[in-house]
Amino acid sequence: MMRLPNMVAASFQPGGSDIATYHFNSDNGAPVCDQIMNALLSCNQGSETAYGADQYTAKLAPAYSEFFERETFVFPVGTGTAGNGLALGAITPPYGTIFCHESAHIVTTEGGAPEFYSGGGRMTLLPGEHNKVSSATLQQALQRHGIGNVHHMAASSISLTQATEAGAVYGAEELKELTAIAHKAGLKVHLDGARISNAIVHLGLTPAEMTWKAGVDILTFGTTKNGTMNAEAVITFDPEIARVLGFMHKRAGHLFSKMRYMSVQLLSYLENDLWCANALRANENAVRVASALAQCADVVLAHPVQINEVFAVLPPRLSNALREKGIHLRPWNLGGNGEGFRLVMSYSDSSEQIQRFEDACREDAAAWNVGPKDAIPSTVRLD
Amino acid sequence: MMRLPNMVAASFQPGGSDIATYHFNSDNGAPVCDQIMNALLSCNQGSETAYGADQYTAKLAPAYSEFFERETFVFPVGTGTAGNGLALGAITPPYGTIFCHESAHIVTTEGGAPEFYSGGGRMTLLPGEHNKVSSATLQQALQRHGIGNVHHMAASSISLTQATEAGAVYGAEELKELTAIAHKAGLKVHLDGARISNAIVHLGLTPAEMTWKAGVDILTFGTTKNGTMNAEAVITFDPEIARVLGFMHKRAGHLFSKMRYMSVQLLSYLENDLWCANALRANENAVRVASALAQCADVVLAHPVQINEVFAVLPPRLSNALREKGIHLRPWNLGGNGEGFRLVMSYSDSSEQIQRFEDACREDAAAWNVGPKDAIPSTVRLD
Amino acid sequence: MMRLPNMVAASFQPGGSDIATYHFNSDNGAPVCDQIMNALLSCNQGSETAYGADQYTAKLAPAYSEFFERETFVFPVGTGTAGNGLALGAITPPYGTIFCHESAHIVTTEGGAPEFYSGGGRMTLLPGEHNKVSSATLQQALQRHGIGNVHHMAASSISLTQATEAGAVYGAEELKELTAIAHKAGLKVHLDGARISNAIVHLGLTPAEMTWKAGVDILTFGTTKNGTMNAEAVITFDPEIARVLGFMHKRAGHLFSKMRYMSVQLLSYLENDLWCANALRANENAVRVASALAQCADVVLAHPVQINEVFAVLPPRLSNALREKGIHLRPWNLGGNGEGFRLVMSYSDSSEQIQRFEDACREDAAAWNVGPKDAIPSTVRLD
Amino acid sequence: MMRLPNMVAASFQPGGSDIATYHFNSDNGAPVCDQIMNALLSCNQGSETAYGADQYTAKLAPAYSEFFERETFVFPVGTGTAGNGLALGAITPPYGTIFCHESAHIVTTEGGAPEFYSGGGRMTLLPGEHNKVSSATLQQALQRHGIGNVHHMAASSISLTQATEAGAVYGAEELKELTAIAHKAGLKVHLDGARISNAIVHLGLTPAEMTWKAGVDILTFGTTKNGTMNAEAVITFDPEIARVLGFMHKRAGHLFSKMRYMSVQLLSYLENDLWCANALRANENAVRVASALAQCADVVLAHPVQINEVFAVLPPRLSNALREKGIHLRPWNLGGNGEGFRLVMSYSDSSEQIQRFEDACREDAAAWNVGPKDAIPSTVRLD
Repeated sequence: MMRLPNMVAASFQPGGSDIATYHFNSDNGAPVCDQIMNALLSCNQGSETAYGADQYTAKLAPAYSEFFERETFVFPVGTGTAGNGLALGAITPPYGTIFCHESAHIVTTEGGAPEFYSGGGRMTLLPGEHNKVSSATLQQALQRHGIGNVHHMAASSISLTQATEAGAVYGAEELKELTAIAHKAGLKVHLDGARISNAIVHLGLTPAEMTWKAGVDILTFGTTKNGTMNAEAVITFDPEIARVLGFMHKRAGHLFSKMRYMSVQLLSYLENDLWCANALRANENAVRVASALAQCADVVLAHPVQINEVFAVLPPRLSNALREKGIHLRPWNLGGNGEGFRLVMSYSDSSEQIQRFEDACREDAAAWNVGPKDAIPSTVRLD
Repeated sequence: MMRLPNMVAASFQPGGSDIATYHFNSDNGAPVCDQIMNALLSCNQGSETAYGADQYTAKLAPAYSEFFERETFVFPVGTGTAGNGLALGAITPPYGTIFCHESAHIVTTEGGAPEFYSGGGRMTLLPGEHNKVSSATLQQALQRHGIGNVHHMAASSISLTQATEAGAVYGAEELKELTAIAHKAGLKVHLDGARISNAIVHLGLTPAEMTWKAGVDILTFGTTKNGTMNAEAVITFDPEIARVLGFMHKRAGHLFSKMRYMSVQLLSYLENDLWCANALRANENAVRVASALAQCADVVLAHPVQINEVFAVLPPRLSNALREKGIHLRPWNLGGNGEGFRLVMSYSDSSEQIQRFEDACREDAAAWNVGPKDAIPSTVRLD
Repeated sequence: MMRLPNMVAASFQPGGSDIATYHFNSDNGAPVCDQIMNALLSCNQGSETAYGADQYTAKLAPAYSEFFERETFVFPVGTGTAGNGLALGAITPPYGTIFCHESAHIVTTEGGAPEFYSGGGRMTLLPGEHNKVSSATLQQALQRHGIGNVHHMAASSISLTQATEAGAVYGAEELKELTAIAHKAGLKVHLDGARISNAIVHLGLTPAEMTWKAGVDILTFGTTKNGTMNAEAVITFDPEIARVLGFMHKRAGHLFSKMRYMSVQLLSYLENDLWCANALRANENAVRVASALAQCADVVLAHPVQINEVFAVLPPRLSNALREKGIHLRPWNLGGNGEGFRLVMSYSDSSEQIQRFEDACREDAAAWNVGPKDAIPSTVRLD
Repeated sequence: MMRLPNMVAASFQPGGSDIATYHFNSDNGAPVCDQIMNALLSCNQGSETAYGADQYTAKLAPAYSEFFERETFVFPVGTGTAGNGLALGAITPPYGTIFCHESAHIVTTEGGAPEFYSGGGRMTLLPGEHNKVSSATLQQALQRHGIGNVHHMAASSISLTQATEAGAVYGAEELKELTAIAHKAGLKVHLDGARISNAIVHLGLTPAEMTWKAGVDILTFGTTKNGTMNAEAVITFDPEIARVLGFMHKRAGHLFSKMRYMSVQLLSYLENDLWCANALRANENAVRVASALAQCADVVLAHPVQINEVFAVLPPRLSNALREKGIHLRPWNLGGNGEGFRLVMSYSDSSEQIQRFEDACREDAAAWNVGPKDAIPSTVRLD
């Protein structure tokens, strides 16, 4: 595959910089955590029936139904793009449109998966601060679109990202208001939960409160960024959507023959609240990093720090100092004057690594004689 | 997922029998072999860049280019259905038709993946002994179809299965004749290689002789049935097909974020000729099983035994005796009078297990006072 | 377009013979009848609102609701292929399969329209005498397919052709039995009515008895072969199917801006029972032609003559004699020993033309000294 | 169809006003002109071979090849949406994106035809004055998109509208600059020519200069708005694109069985320069209407008047006066303070009708004592 220059370009330098030695690059770069790896080893005994008829897959729906406090249908997939595509395709007809944020991951970097899985649907793009869609914006968009006008496409679904690509989190009330508007207009509601565990622990809600109790019909439940080996799941609470997904999931080649290795990960992910412990660690690391930056002069946070991501514009002085200490940052277009960077923390970051970052910032703060700022500016904006 | 009765039905009892304790069910039921599991553990250290920009994926194309003795493009996928769908979609336009055997796996049990990935293509079904397509059949079909007739679909590609679902293998000369006819008519050639390693070792050819030297443009390279953890690969030797696949592969959600865990398996699969060793063991087990059956009276083999599958019609006397010994067989419709069964052997079958089967057959042979037959009837037919 | 050799081949010589001067070629070759042409002239006054908001389109649904004795939704299209594609796409999901006869027009000569409009669906082909599907065949096919098995596609719909491509007609009871089986299995029922008027007048039923009263959910109502200028209609009695069709119809480019010219034809087609008068004339012409042939020795009718088509195998002696009289016949593969031909009669055939054909046959009969046969053998078979 | 409230809403009141008695509503509302209707009558004699093998279709490619001074492939279709969909589908793969203006007709009111015909492609929307795309905008968009990045879609084509939905026309040099940028990036160029005749006569260019000499690969050649009966054509100069179109055109149900009635219109449209004469008349009527408005105080033209459309913001005083005289205007959102209206003139507008409009404006000008303005403000902008 590496012979394909375009794929190299695509995957090796999304930010355009050499990120070979970078340490806060992405939670996708983290290894598989020990509990998950042990689960994989533990199920690697003897023969099992293929295509999901094994003893582990048999426990999936019960375990997740308990997790979500309601009958739950679970479809394991290997990537978030597959999960989002399948989920949106199951609730959007070929002649339908999906309302979503103009910078949503499904729009910017999933290669047209929503169009592929819906069979020719469209995404209607909405603006919004920190990649969040507001109720007012949604309402206006629905009005402008017109329901049932055959010269337009059918208003079919909405996709919200929790937490957003900017690291922002929808509160339960915000979600309820949005899903109420969507349902009233006949739309189904999808949640892209690539980092949903980080959002849940940030809000201190139950998985049920974060999903179906807030009006979510179907979600992509991400676990890979939080410790598993390419194991995501499309989750729905609607039997009819599940019936359709059964066919789509197989048809697209996401029904694994050796399913046990997917199922055992998704089961282990819930055991000992692993999902929660890993997400908490990642979020805490982000607070440490953001707090360290907050002490430094001329630093601006582009988005609130609510999960395991920090988006910061740094003065050249500081970014150079970090570089010299072997801390390479991933450039990110945040507008403004200085250099923008995205820092993503993970459950697997060593305390030493974070410590080193904190030390570097403390040095900078001291050198520039600036007293520690008291709080992380959680809604600072750039122009 | 287990809440979906249809999926249970689909995966748990494809043959309609209780196969929970069955021992020769499918090579999809085998565990991951030690070398592969160790490779997974060995690469689970520290952080790696996501989406294929890691050190393992960097070695994929070079390793497979050496394996196939030519520049090779490799696209890892999690299932054979995904591999076949992507491969066929890359060489078949939405208005095109794929020529293939009427009982090919892509026709019978992949949920319409070829139609999905081609965007509305069709499969034109051909008959043939042991699921093999003959040159004469292909030539007639192309003639009947008519090239360039817009009232029909565009004749675009052909998919051959090596080895076939009946365990039969195309010889290199057979393949060359078929691919020459296909190319002359403007078709691209796809090989479904779910069990290609078993076919290669049976024929004693090189991977190059089995593929591009025989006129294959693109293939699904199966490794899961032969020891890996849900790791298949779409392989092509054509840069333009590879360019298209790059987009389709991502778009369908098969570009893994933690790609290293796919790549390291596909690399390890070639090391120490693991692919070859496992396939040989599986094939040998099949020969032992078939030889044991061949001693028994009233047994008919429906297809030649060339890889790790045996298709046999047994007298009730024998099938009952096996059952009583805890050897449950998977029913398979083979026509004829007796009960048909499919036995699939794997690299992981213990020698004791095979031994038990041999003993049971020897007992039957003795009891029914029939001298050992000399050879396995390799082309016995049923009516 | 004529620069495209393939399209020339496709349209100019579907039967492989020079049909430039042939007189019983196809009812598609007939001109537009006077009443329809006058209707077009009559509505060509002044300005009308576009896209179906004109006074003529306003009368469509009421007129057809009266015609079918039930609320009816009408979607004008320019071709039968568009009609069949839209109709099947509206009742078949991308992961669904359509049960139909293996020689149905949607299978053999519509360029993959069902796959296109369903977004990747499949057609499951059934055998049957005179292109008719029997209840037994359908029941077996459904059983074999398995409902809800995700490894197969979803059993979604059935398409029946009335009259069939072999000129055979389903009786009302036959249809009811088939549609009952289909509905019980959760299938929607489509009728390809390219020659439905000919079938209705043959059976002496009402349009309601021929369609929804017999369990038809949606049909392609053909009028072009029976006197209009490229005006067909997709007709359904189900408001939800109609809602979906509204979007599909526009999306595929079948919502005409100057809709009045489509609607006025479909309205005029019902006036003075034009549909009925033209179909009767065409059927009568077929009876005259078949009766003439029946007098001749060594003639075999391949299919019953129930509408405006005659399928006959002629002795070279007779086909040559006809050729010499300037009556060129369109070759048609009917198996058997002699030469097969398809003769299609139309409302527009002049009585002289039929007379000439009758004379030629009478001469042949006299010359070969064979007394007139009494009846048309309506179910003669070839081997 | 009128039973479908959504379709009624869609087609009857796109502007939200009662347009039943409106006189400058749309060129889609005009009748078929006499020359075309006579051509239809003249070809309605005797039998013709179906599906394009008739004597009229035989003349299509030669006639259009002469018209465009180059070998030309012609595919008749019934609507502009079908034409645009087919054209874009032939040059855009399912994983590709089409660059176009954010207010292009293919985006706003074709029900998702581009996504349908491309099999899941996307439209990347660009801003631009008077619905025109500038070279700078295109260049930036291509740079931002990135060529060959599999996480995005493949940059495949661009669609430009000539004249645009705002009645603006691209000059030959503007087009050449845009198509050069597009071709350099590997894009194919499509022209939506719903009103291309009006643009050609405005610029005084030859059809060749307006299309392939300016870098256009394929176009939708509109004739319906300019006098025919639902007859448009997809036109390309590229044999390979034509080969693909042959299959797509049939597959989508746009290959008419009684093709002669489409072809004879497209032939007659070129005879006696009918296309040119009708377009000139329509454009002249627009100039008369715009000049009349230009005399009145407080009138602002939103877009330059270059073809047969006028977009004007009128003071309530004037719009009411017109209403009282039975001249109902079609509301159009043009921003600004006053009421916006779109006036579309056609070849069929009677001189009296235009006269009545001019009189009304003269009265208003006199009453408000404003001397005639000298010129039509051709680039007045609104805020």
